[in-house]
Amino acid sequence: MSVYEGTTFRGSSTGTIIRSTFRRETLSGDDVVIKVTHSGLCGTDLHHVLQALGPACRQLSIGDRVGWGFTYASCGFCFACLAGDEALCNECVNYVASELDQGSLSNLAVKKERWLFRIPDGIHSELAAPLLCAGVSVFTPLIEYVKPSDRIGIVGVGGLGHLAIQFASKMGCDVVAFSGSSSKREDALALGAREFYAIKGIDDYTTLGLKKPLDALMICTSENLDLGKYSPLLERRAHVIYVTIDGGNLVAPLIPTVARNIKLVGWVPASRKEYVKCLDFCERNKVMPIIERFPMHEEGIAQAIDKLVQGKVRYRAVFSWE
Amino acid sequence: MSVYEGTTFRGSSTGTIIRSTFRRETLSGDDVVIKVTHSGLCGTDLHHVLQALGPACRQLSIGDRVGWGFTYASCGFCFACLAGDEALCNECVNYVASELDQGSLSNLAVKKERWLFRIPDGIHSELAAPLLCAGVSVFTPLIEYVKPSDRIGIVGVGGLGHLAIQFASKMGCDVVAFSGSSSKREDALALGAREFYAIKGIDDYTTLGLKKPLDALMICTSENLDLGKYSPLLERRAHVIYVTIDGGNLVAPLIPTVARNIKLVGWVPASRKEYVKCLDFCERNKVMPIIERFPMHEEGIAQAIDKLVQGKVRYRAVFSWE
Repeated sequence: MSVYEGTTFRGSSTGTIIRSTFRRETLSGDDVVIKVTHSGLCGTDLHHVLQALGPACRQLSIGDRVGWGFTYASCGFCFACLAGDEALCNECVNYVASELDQGSLSNLAVKKERWLFRIPDGIHSELAAPLLCAGVSVFTPLIEYVKPSDRIGIVGVGGLGHLAIQFASKMGCDVVAFSGSSSKREDALALGAREFYAIKGIDDYTTLGLKKPLDALMICTSENLDLGKYSPLLERRAHVIYVTIDGGNLVAPLIPTVARNIKLVGWVPASRKEYVKCLDFCERNKVMPIIERFPMHEEGIAQAIDKLVQGKVRYRAVFSWE
Repeated sequence: MSVYEGTTFRGSSTGTIIRSTFRRETLSGDDVVIKVTHSGLCGTDLHHVLQALGPACRQLSIGDRVGWGFTYASCGFCFACLAGDEALCNECVNYVASELDQGSLSNLAVKKERWLFRIPDGIHSELAAPLLCAGVSVFTPLIEYVKPSDRIGIVGVGGLGHLAIQFASKMGCDVVAFSGSSSKREDALALGAREFYAIKGIDDYTTLGLKKPLDALMICTSENLDLGKYSPLLERRAHVIYVTIDGGNLVAPLIPTVARNIKLVGWVPASRKEYVKCLDFCERNKVMPIIERFPMHEEGIAQAIDKLVQGKVRYRAVFSWE
């Protein structure tokens, strides 16, 4: 029987990065041991090569390139699980809910087979990492709520937004990007946006000069925002999609929202079926994140977090063992 | 007051092409007089320049390039009309239901403003003509029933199918083309299909070797077909979309259809909102028909019909005045 020993990194309350080790001597049923090669920053997106399989594993083979995302276990019996929405399970295990998390900033991980997704040949490991967190988070609501004939606004051109622009563009949508300053204009247009608006300091967005109203608006900023400013830009029946995770309230002007059948929706955690479809879509349509590489050790991790806090990562940090 | 005199061509029961003339001396409310420059063959897709406007016209201007499609009037009061589905109106006027049709194979036409659609600058007149019939007929159900993450089979690579492949591909779908022989393989792949299967003479389609099951199947052949052959290729909950217009019955194997939640759907006539979105999508994503040009006179029309009957048009006939 093999023994598996891993090294993993995590943050502490004082902001320093802590290295710890773990040891597994037995593999139960559908356990899978994974050699971690890349991890995204968000703590939730990573990428691996299979090292060993428990006796009940059915789909994967040793050596497969696989990844996992934000959620990596669910109860299997609640209605969300029965409906294929395992990420909405009350007992699901993810990077927020779980205390058992051994992290993706690691050299080795043990996960359940059913929550591992094979990486298509056309996607490099370091690019797959952000797709399994930021990518699937914007892909899932786009597929659910947005049609290829829609005109969609993407607010925020960052880790989420730079992928949302690509997905919507590759779906055939008319994509409009909103960003604070003009510094990301060229990037946004190159990624598939057809219009770009810098919004910092502007109070009345009707002065931006949009050519047509928006059938959908996806909020990809790291902070909550004032939906009232966007309200006049929306077409009747538009979907406003919140991917942003932030404290406070979701606030929208009541009359223009209800009287024009505007729909406010959120859908952050992807379930297993969406991971499969997302990776497939990305390979086929060449949706790939723009990444910054960092080494997987205490100093590299601290450096990346520092840059993330300052809003300077272009557009997603990925760690790898050197 | 101007007098408008037009020349128009139509078929007769003996198969010869008949030239006739018409004369309009008055324009009521929202009448629009159009100089016809191009017409597709299907009798239903055409393209014009505005010559004169009735006093109640509100949207169009003299000189605008416009087109119309299969449907060009509806009652305005039935539930279909109230729901924006005017093409499903029982009293709608189209090229099948109407006896008042003066045809698109013509040099002049008088139509209602609300059924004319402005052609975007990025679409040439001769390419716009087929988009207003074949194009919108496949675009409408694709937008309604198919997601960009779907794998879709297109059956028949002809006037409809060669556009359906482009639309689905530009939506980001995984597109699989089925055609009788291999003669259209290169065209289908160039238009955006990722797999191609020649099916003539094959009884068991599971021997074709498809890589994965299909989430949708669009029937674009000119004749009805045996759905039972395609049934084993379909994913659970797949949509089977009939664009084919043919006599007889729609026949599907009962148990594999109901027990796997397969949905059989049809949606041929587009309403006004779909024309607007279709032209917009085509300009943005460069969906353009492959056409054969014919002159708009008795001989040219007879020649094109002859070629159409023999299945030799690649892929849509368009007439123009020389």
